[in-house]
Amino acid sequence: MGLVYLLQIDEEVAKLLELKARLGGDDGKHQFVLKTAKGTRDYNPKQMAIREKVFNTIISCFKRHGAETIDTPVFELKETLTGKYGEDSKLIYDLKDQGGELLSLRYDLTVPFARYLAMNKITNIKRYHIAKVYRRDNPAMTRGRYREFYQCDFDIAGQYDAMIPDAECLKIVYEILHELDLGDFRIKVNDRRILDGMFAVCGVPDDKFRTICSTVDKLDKMSWEDVKKEMVNEKGLSEQAADQIGEYVSMQGGMDLAEHLLQDQKMSQSKQACAGLSDIKLLFSYLQLFQVTDKVVFDLSLARGLDYYTGVIYEAVLTQAGSTEESVSVGSVAGGGRYDGLVGMFDPKGRKVPCVGVSIGIERIFSIMEQKAEVSAEKVRTTEVQVMVASAQKNLLEERLKLTAELWNAGIKAEVMYKKNPKLLSQLQHCEESGIPLVAILGEQELKDGVVKLRVVATREEVSHTVDIHTAPHLRTI
Amino acid sequence: MGLVYLLQIDEEVAKLLELKARLGGDDGKHQFVLKTAKGTRDYNPKQMAIREKVFNTIISCFKRHGAETIDTPVFELKETLTGKYGEDSKLIYDLKDQGGELLSLRYDLTVPFARYLAMNKITNIKRYHIAKVYRRDNPAMTRGRYREFYQCDFDIAGQYDAMIPDAECLKIVYEILHELDLGDFRIKVNDRRILDGMFAVCGVPDDKFRTICSTVDKLDKMSWEDVKKEMVNEKGLSEQAADQIGEYVSMQGGMDLAEHLLQDQKMSQSKQACAGLSDIKLLFSYLQLFQVTDKVVFDLSLARGLDYYTGVIYEAVLTQAGSTEESVSVGSVAGGGRYDGLVGMFDPKGRKVPCVGVSIGIERIFSIMEQKAEVSAEKVRTTEVQVMVASAQKNLLEERLKLTAELWNAGIKAEVMYKKNPKLLSQLQHCEESGIPLVAILGEQELKDGVVKLRVVATREEVSHTVDIHTAPHLRTI
Repeated sequence: MGLVYLLQIDEEVAKLLELKARLGGDDGKHQFVLKTAKGTRDYNPKQMAIREKVFNTIISCFKRHGAETIDTPVFELKETLTGKYGEDSKLIYDLKDQGGELLSLRYDLTVPFARYLAMNKITNIKRYHIAKVYRRDNPAMTRGRYREFYQCDFDIAGQYDAMIPDAECLKIVYEILHELDLGDFRIKVNDRRILDGMFAVCGVPDDKFRTICSTVDKLDKMSWEDVKKEMVNEKGLSEQAADQIGEYVSMQGGMDLAEHLLQDQKMSQSKQACAGLSDIKLLFSYLQLFQVTDKVVFDLSLARGLDYYTGVIYEAVLTQAGSTEESVSVGSVAGGGRYDGLVGMFDPKGRKVPCVGVSIGIERIFSIMEQKAEVSAEKVRTTEVQVMVASAQKNLLEERLKLTAELWNAGIKAEVMYKKNPKLLSQLQHCEESGIPLVAILGEQELKDGVVKLRVVATREEVSHTVDIHTAPHLRTI
Repeated sequence: MGLVYLLQIDEEVAKLLELKARLGGDDGKHQFVLKTAKGTRDYNPKQMAIREKVFNTIISCFKRHGAETIDTPVFELKETLTGKYGEDSKLIYDLKDQGGELLSLRYDLTVPFARYLAMNKITNIKRYHIAKVYRRDNPAMTRGRYREFYQCDFDIAGQYDAMIPDAECLKIVYEILHELDLGDFRIKVNDRRILDGMFAVCGVPDDKFRTICSTVDKLDKMSWEDVKKEMVNEKGLSEQAADQIGEYVSMQGGMDLAEHLLQDQKMSQSKQACAGLSDIKLLFSYLQLFQVTDKVVFDLSLARGLDYYTGVIYEAVLTQAGSTEESVSVGSVAGGGRYDGLVGMFDPKGRKVPCVGVSIGIERIFSIMEQKAEVSAEKVRTTEVQVMVASAQKNLLEERLKLTAELWNAGIKAEVMYKKNPKLLSQLQHCEESGIPLVAILGEQELKDGVVKLRVVATREEVSHTVDIHTAPHLRTI
């Protein structure tokens, strides 16, 4: 059958690639380039300290809400990702065919999650997953857009009563943005069924729902006039239909707006829209119990790009920049919604597992936090060392090492310089540079007396302690 | 030049690949395969809970020793990895050439670390890095060998006095293995200079040092007889030289053995060996101060595979299985050494940055911990939920949601069922299944009285508390 052809092709490809490799990329002169791959970056210790702080806040929130965590491989079978991302599929990183399976780097965490549920026949789980994903997009690194970046997802899968898990997702976004203290924010909420119903009653042809939806999605970056132009001129919508959409998508409110639209002559003609509007009402009643309605807005202009949403959608935006500088432009910092059909795409029998989830826009949050740290007077510590074991005189290496080991054994974070005879000044400088609060200074006299001198680096206050670490409460309770 | 050829080749390759894709992998019938890529696995919540516990222990140790952390991208420019892994280079995963740079998945964390240091001109740092690496090896997943797996590295870079950072690396291995409680262990120590010196005085030709070294490295899996056979029959060493090596590599000891070999008539003829032996003596003196000599053995048979080591090398092995079952065979659980030349390979001017480090064999440790959890009566919890908010009667959803939100706002880990009217039994069952210790039960009477009933799931003890969470010390201090 086709197999012989395939093998022949493989052989030809291998030969040509080998030839290409021999020819080399330039005139044979090897110029070694010392860089990371395009669109990627290293994280230095300072960035890692900020990253750790942000992750801790987010993970604490997820755990407070009873989430488990899972992990999936960084690459999936290519076919697992096929047909899930529409046009964006061209941004997927493929691995080279080195014999064996065809593989691609994961593009998000949602599709691997759905594959995981289907593969393990899991019908309900509340899980978070924080990991890197890969997109061969045009990097805009100054604005926090990379080809390798973190996603930070929380999802609830399972057949439950309407809007309860959805409300918890919004509560989580609220808690995280509040705790990260990024400035004021707003969470926009809408429902795909309301959008579809609205398109129907405004006279948008069925086959244009998705493309008109994409255009509506641009309202956060474009004026209504431009959006209308795109609808009419590019997408061939009638001016009348566009104007009717324009009226709806300018509406914002809360439970009252949903109530109002349920009475709206046109909107109420769509069963879909009514189902969505009733759910928005129910959602807001739960959000009131969760005490988060002060930041949540029902906004009919919210569309969100992804195809797989089937119900409620939401997006959180910062309403003021996190800092005075304007160079980092941040918009959306979280988004998500309900996707009841995705897991069924993986199940051999098409069994559905309803899901709702949220993705925290962690890279944007990193950018803001880094910028905040930049302008702040407070220094970011990259280690947690509590005490530096130093000596003022020469030939005390052994005593320093011994005391340091005792501190380590007592669970105290301690450092010692890797020099036989370091100068006291350079030991103290290291403390100041890395923010170590205490220095234990050993000297001949102290050793004779069986004590160590403990100095507070910032104030230069000194106290003497007996060398036995177990009776040194200052060290143990830092 | 070659450019025209390259473009033509690219075109041909693209055409052939397209043809192949159209032909498909079988007779056109699409059979969807629901699996992870060969040699990889998902981590389920239970495995993640174990993983988190192990990481916490290890990271605490690294932090106690004052380490910072960095992160690097999962892929590097292909040329960054070229020429670093010898024969094993064939195991590197390449990315498909989709236009732009040629990329490969990282094979370890050491080469990216060296690239990071050279690129940023960093001459001293103490850092840890925990991340996944990729090798197209033959997976042996039951023995914890995967194609995607974690590495967990701690390294000290910088020009320091001899053996002080090296001793700290061994102290760290000791602390981690001790705290993880995997059973008894031994840390073998040797020095590449001693091995080279030994080969020289035993009459091994210079160009056979590396290959004979690889054969010596097999002594932990093969008998001396078989190793000797390989040396003589396969590698062409004289029987006499092999026998002399055989005498040395059977030696184990401590500082005394180093002292003894410094007096050894043959060994003392090699300057290299003497330098290594003196350093072993110095190392042991520091290890005494660090109180870890009870587990450390100077073992002349330790060789370690990697080419880049230049001085001290070490490897930790468990001396008894972590469990009664024998299916998971574990050997080495940590290894490392000094590599003073690697960073210089990346520096345009060849400037060296001496480094010493250790890699914790985290996947093997996971395997042991999972197996331990399997046989243990204690259940592994996958969430940290402290209290479940439940109700005994119908129509109390709103009250449940409100109380749950109050608990969340007070920082308490709480769960509520996403059902309007769940049965009390199913709520209690959920507590037992996921190990939630407390259940707050709401009922008409309690609501009237303004209290909640708090039940200890395990003992069924009950107490009543006022609903105001801020006066409910039991909940706050869990």
